[in-house]
Amino acid sequence: MERKFYLEDIPLDEAWAAYRGALASAGLWQPLASETVTLDQAAGRVTAVAVWARLSSPHYHASAMDGYALRAEDTVGATETRPLRFVLVNPDDDPAGRRSTLNTSPAQPVNTGHPLPAWANAVVMIEQVQPVMLAGAQTGIEIRAAVPPWHHVRSMGEDMVATELVLPANHRLRPVDLGALAGSGHASVDVYRRPRVAIIPTGSELVDATTAAPEPGRIIEYNSLVLAAQIESWGGQPARLPIAPDNFEAIRAAVSQASRDHDLILLNAGSSAGSEDYTAHVVEALGRLLVHGVAVRPGHPVILGLIDRVEDDSEPGLANQKQKPVPIIGVPGYPVSAALTGEIFVEPLLARWQGQAPYEPPTLQGKLTRKLVSPTGDDDFVRVVVGKVGDEYTVTPISRGAGVITSLVRADGIVRVPRFSEGEDAGASVTVHLYRRPQDIDRSIVAIGSHDLTLDLIAQFLAERHSGLRLISANVGSLGGLVALRRGEAHLAGSHLLDPATGEYNTSYVHRYLPDLPVALVMLAGREQGWIVPPGNPKGLRAWADCARPDVRIVNRQRGAGTRVLLDYELGKLGIEPATIQGYDREEYTHLAVAAAVASGAADAGLGIRAAARALALDFISLAHESYEIVIPLAHYQSPLLQPLLELLQDDTFRQAVAAMPGYDVAAMGTVRML
Amino acid sequence: MERKFYLEDIPLDEAWAAYRGALASAGLWQPLASETVTLDQAAGRVTAVAVWARLSSPHYHASAMDGYALRAEDTVGATETRPLRFVLVNPDDDPAGRRSTLNTSPAQPVNTGHPLPAWANAVVMIEQVQPVMLAGAQTGIEIRAAVPPWHHVRSMGEDMVATELVLPANHRLRPVDLGALAGSGHASVDVYRRPRVAIIPTGSELVDATTAAPEPGRIIEYNSLVLAAQIESWGGQPARLPIAPDNFEAIRAAVSQASRDHDLILLNAGSSAGSEDYTAHVVEALGRLLVHGVAVRPGHPVILGLIDRVEDDSEPGLANQKQKPVPIIGVPGYPVSAALTGEIFVEPLLARWQGQAPYEPPTLQGKLTRKLVSPTGDDDFVRVVVGKVGDEYTVTPISRGAGVITSLVRADGIVRVPRFSEGEDAGASVTVHLYRRPQDIDRSIVAIGSHDLTLDLIAQFLAERHSGLRLISANVGSLGGLVALRRGEAHLAGSHLLDPATGEYNTSYVHRYLPDLPVALVMLAGREQGWIVPPGNPKGLRAWADCARPDVRIVNRQRGAGTRVLLDYELGKLGIEPATIQGYDREEYTHLAVAAAVASGAADAGLGIRAAARALALDFISLAHESYEIVIPLAHYQSPLLQPLLELLQDDTFRQAVAAMPGYDVAAMGTVRML
Repeated sequence: MERKFYLEDIPLDEAWAAYRGALASAGLWQPLASETVTLDQAAGRVTAVAVWARLSSPHYHASAMDGYALRAEDTVGATETRPLRFVLVNPDDDPAGRRSTLNTSPAQPVNTGHPLPAWANAVVMIEQVQPVMLAGAQTGIEIRAAVPPWHHVRSMGEDMVATELVLPANHRLRPVDLGALAGSGHASVDVYRRPRVAIIPTGSELVDATTAAPEPGRIIEYNSLVLAAQIESWGGQPARLPIAPDNFEAIRAAVSQASRDHDLILLNAGSSAGSEDYTAHVVEALGRLLVHGVAVRPGHPVILGLIDRVEDDSEPGLANQKQKPVPIIGVPGYPVSAALTGEIFVEPLLARWQGQAPYEPPTLQGKLTRKLVSPTGDDDFVRVVVGKVGDEYTVTPISRGAGVITSLVRADGIVRVPRFSEGEDAGASVTVHLYRRPQDIDRSIVAIGSHDLTLDLIAQFLAERHSGLRLISANVGSLGGLVALRRGEAHLAGSHLLDPATGEYNTSYVHRYLPDLPVALVMLAGREQGWIVPPGNPKGLRAWADCARPDVRIVNRQRGAGTRVLLDYELGKLGIEPATIQGYDREEYTHLAVAAAVASGAADAGLGIRAAARALALDFISLAHESYEIVIPLAHYQSPLLQPLLELLQDDTFRQAVAAMPGYDVAAMGTVRML
Repeated sequence: MERKFYLEDIPLDEAWAAYRGALASAGLWQPLASETVTLDQAAGRVTAVAVWARLSSPHYHASAMDGYALRAEDTVGATETRPLRFVLVNPDDDPAGRRSTLNTSPAQPVNTGHPLPAWANAVVMIEQVQPVMLAGAQTGIEIRAAVPPWHHVRSMGEDMVATELVLPANHRLRPVDLGALAGSGHASVDVYRRPRVAIIPTGSELVDATTAAPEPGRIIEYNSLVLAAQIESWGGQPARLPIAPDNFEAIRAAVSQASRDHDLILLNAGSSAGSEDYTAHVVEALGRLLVHGVAVRPGHPVILGLIDRVEDDSEPGLANQKQKPVPIIGVPGYPVSAALTGEIFVEPLLARWQGQAPYEPPTLQGKLTRKLVSPTGDDDFVRVVVGKVGDEYTVTPISRGAGVITSLVRADGIVRVPRFSEGEDAGASVTVHLYRRPQDIDRSIVAIGSHDLTLDLIAQFLAERHSGLRLISANVGSLGGLVALRRGEAHLAGSHLLDPATGEYNTSYVHRYLPDLPVALVMLAGREQGWIVPPGNPKGLRAWADCARPDVRIVNRQRGAGTRVLLDYELGKLGIEPATIQGYDREEYTHLAVAAAVASGAADAGLGIRAAARALALDFISLAHESYEIVIPLAHYQSPLLQPLLELLQDDTFRQAVAAMPGYDVAAMGTVRML
């Protein structure tokens, strides 16, 4: 097994400069060729040239109303008391020629949009005339007011005059633009060709995301799904090519083949320096390796290169690219790294190829809720959630793991910590590059504190019933939640803190941590706590004390979690020293994570709720009942934002959904205590 | 010709209430049924149900690094000076069983993402080990530091734990969401069916937008293009059906047919009360007419109805809609009315059918630059352009005509003037519902003043070379431009005002209108002014005085336009009374509009520039040369925003493009005078 590693660590701006320079030298840092598409295919495409009006619009003088075309000069003198009469003529009549033969002035019925007869120069609305019968059984009308010339007439060119600029080049076509193009005489439009991007997943252990449940060790390949959807949203045409095995020749062949008919190749992954990382070798073999390793986090093992195109005369679409090499990007395998590599390296190139500036997300300024430590050598892209609590935006970093795709799913935006910065202190004002619109952030209920499955159900019900209303929750334990409320960082905190002295939940903690803040304590549910153990309870746990047995490894909750408080309280009663318990130091942040640790065999037991055990088909040894409440500062309790949540607690469907979870009791749900 | 009219004028909110009520009664004010799509088809679709994790992710303990899996407890005691040695084993080995037979602790090479062997609980990075040869020619490694348990291990469930909520219902799927779905064991997802919308253009005079140049009286049908693109962008599936003639039976048949396999029918137009407006009759014949006429401007003749669905067993996709009627909307024919009817009546329904709230555009507050008069009876949707000049957003209403599609193309947003309001005064702060992002507004150069084709060229060149940078121009004449500069409403004003006393352009006007504002006067071009006349100059115009001939009708420019000033100056010199000139009162706002009036036969001559005559293949009688300058307040002249424009004036390609226009002279282009 050959194990060499030579990842560089080039700063992001230098990597981009090298990349852009090489692309420019190769004639690739410019828009792609144009193609002509009919207007019904043009929405969302970008004009490759300025478009000038071929026709005026309207291209004739048109009636702007349903009514009668006539000569304005014939209406002079008409009043309420002295109406003037007109004889109705057909479009085929030429009243100019027949004028002397008519006893009265002519008028011709016209509908909106119809052309004005050549002899007419005004329109009277149908509502403002009176039908009359004229001598000789001719039909006529009476009008009771004079009209000026060009009254209710859309003159030729009112909208657009032939030769006028309709749309500039590099303009992304919106629905109304299609109307302007058509109205000015264009049936088609020249737009930039959509960039074709090949995505080649590599890895013998990968299985396609559309296949059934994989074996351990097999990895579900979904980066290509994410990259393809990104590329589509950026105006490109993605092609998800078959998974290539970890094999130099196979990857080289796949890349060569893709170079025939694509503008860009993404190779994912194999861009690091492991024993099966062939991307760099393949790029070197087929062309030029420009960059291997960029000091950006997450995403270090990015490869940028240019390979020689395999010519293919059967591909007319790429005609103008024929003599040019093909850019290739080695995309790191971790899903967060892969998605961010798309944003950082792929999007600007696709934008350039379509005559656009790189996408610039909306930003907002917010207050960091906790210290953010960042490696000085890297440009660090930190996923954050953003809430608006009171008048201020609060910014909370979430998981930093490059493998945690849910961190991107949950993220409201990115805080970019530049190279040479060591991070930011809690309370610092930071710029967030948003994934959502600021107005959507404003409709988020921020829950920081203890985790409970009921919060997931609330999030789900709110999303279903109140479109746009989100519940975002950060799991920092009950005590952490009270601290967050004190700092004004959350609308509510889930809490289940047992007071050893009184046996009561939460009250004494709220008095201690939030002495000056009036709050409502709202009961969500009663629930069981106990040992989560593997099926069949192989180690035979029964009581609290069993966790201290030498043959038992537990998994614990983090400090400040109500469940941890409960465990420590019971251990204290029994006089058991935590240091004697195996696994006491291994902390997880949710009940489900505890259950997952037990299910995976990493631990023999963990304290948690029955529902978490049931969810992963584990056994459960019941030890205690507890009250799970949410703590809500009075100002938020009374705010419109929280009313849908409070109403939910009275809703039968919701209560049944909670009661259906194992170990849950909703008898007291919605009970409020004011403190 | 039957001519009846019975348009009601129901307030917008009442119309919507009636519509929503009828839809709710019919079971149509709720999301459509769901369908299952594979993940590669799911981007942009909306989840119909909450999605819970089927698998944990990772679904096994995985190495987070390229390196070696080992037991953390075996590393205790390793230091720089006292490294510990490990023997390399294969994945097939079971070191647990063989442990006693090994002289040293085991380590197994692992790549990122690979499963940890069951006996291991930590990973050491490849960079931190030293290969060594062990006794018996066994390969081994040395490590120089102890690692804690679970070091560089992604535990099972780190990202997602089976049964956890991955995404709520009613969530529009973004690229990263597809990754989370795949990673949690889903190969497909239940999403709402896309609403199918039939668009039926009606009108015997219509010609399809993809056909060649139409005859006068024929109208290019492009509302269906705009509506289809809108519907597509709102997540629907539009079908542009063939144009139906103005004929009750034909329209009824087309609507009946469309009801078989569509969720919504848009009938355009024929929704007014003219002789060929059949929509209301068709809706009454096939179902129930709910609303005919809404007090919204533009867009009065909107029809809302429900028709009975023609059953069609061959359409399984609509299964759950079978028993329900089909909503039908009569869309007004004017393009601005049609597009706004889409936004007001179609978008909220499509959003509801996909479990979403209606789209809410971003807004900003800006200062109205001119008085806005609005009919009190209507909800008035006024198109505006928005510029950021200095620190303030300026909001300028543009053409109110419902037929002027370019008013929507140019619009940056809409100011909604509610019913019962008579409008707003100049200077009032108004809310703009934006069509663009606020950050894009900030990159707009606002030109208010005289119109010149050079401004169109500048707009085109800037768009091509500086993606995102716009030049927006309002044509109010030279004097109007100076007034706009004084009010701080524009970055620059095009001006060609001749001082009769000095024969010099602009200087004295700038002194008079902008006495306290330091400005740069930048020469754009010299250009010819003269009579624009029909080909062959049928009336034989030669000199200024010819416009006063009794057989000549002119078209004039508006008051304050430099061209108007020039005409008045020359008439004054000749002692000609304007009242004696036919057509002196007919005002147009651009050179091209003057040329169009001549081309259409509405006038025999108009004063304008040679290029406008040439553009419409008209003849031109040269009378004068003039200087066209732009006036730029010093603060803007020095701002980064305007530098690309100023650089353009030195650019050879641009200068050649201007010089290529008939009658233009670029010798002095870019010359600057500071006043």
